[in-house]
Amino acid sequence: MQVVNLQSAKLFSPEKLKKNLLFQTDRLMCDLYCLEPGQGQKPHLHTDSDKVYIVLEGEGRFRVGGEEAKLAPQMGVLAPAGLEHGVQNDGPGRLTLLVVMAPKPPPMIPTL
Amino acid sequence: MQVVNLQSAKLFSPEKLKKNLLFQTDRLMCDLYCLEPGQGQKPHLHTDSDKVYIVLEGEGRFRVGGEEAKLAPQMGVLAPAGLEHGVQNDGPGRLTLLVVMAPKPPPMIPTL
Repeated sequence: MQVVNLQSAKLFSPEKLKKNLLFQTDRLMCDLYCLEPGQGQKPHLHTDSDKVYIVLEGEGRFRVGGEEAKLAPQMGVLAPAGLEHGVQNDGPGRLTLLVVMAPKPPPMIPTL
Repeated sequence: MQVVNLQSAKLFSPEKLKKNLLFQTDRLMCDLYCLEPGQGQKPHLHTDSDKVYIVLEGEGRFRVGGEEAKLAPQMGVLAPAGLEHGVQNDGPGRLTLLVVMAPKPPPMIPTL
């Protein structure tokens, strides 16, 4: 029985956004993204995978398909396959995100 | 841009576990499961979809593939395709779960 503890998985990097893998199968990938203030994920897209972001802690400025929204804890956003998306932590606090992609994607295509 | 607020989506039913849909695509289904004390999801399986449960509030007794574990907030468990799984809220508090399935499944097969 594959159990994870998000508190234990919550690791940050001083250099860049840290993706902490929680679960991975052929059908999905579930990560805990940890972003220090000033860190972000550049806009990119996945041609064949959908992504869900759920904010657990902090505030994130999300961009999906040219639209932008600031999301607080207990808010989520969908980035469907083919739509450019990214997230930025403008601070002042740390940002922790639960991220699920389905299916598990091949390497991403940077668009900026 | 499809944004959801988990606090607004958190609805319970006095009769049975309430599944509140957050996002749905062909590739994934993301729900907020709300369980009053005593409510549960009977063991069942999906032949071609994986499922991730993340506990947001309360405590749940999870069963996956014949194993059982009690999970607290910020813990998660994977129920891979083909493995029987279920969850029970033994109380005393309410139980709220973020649940992602990939891909979006056909109707479930009860096994008990």
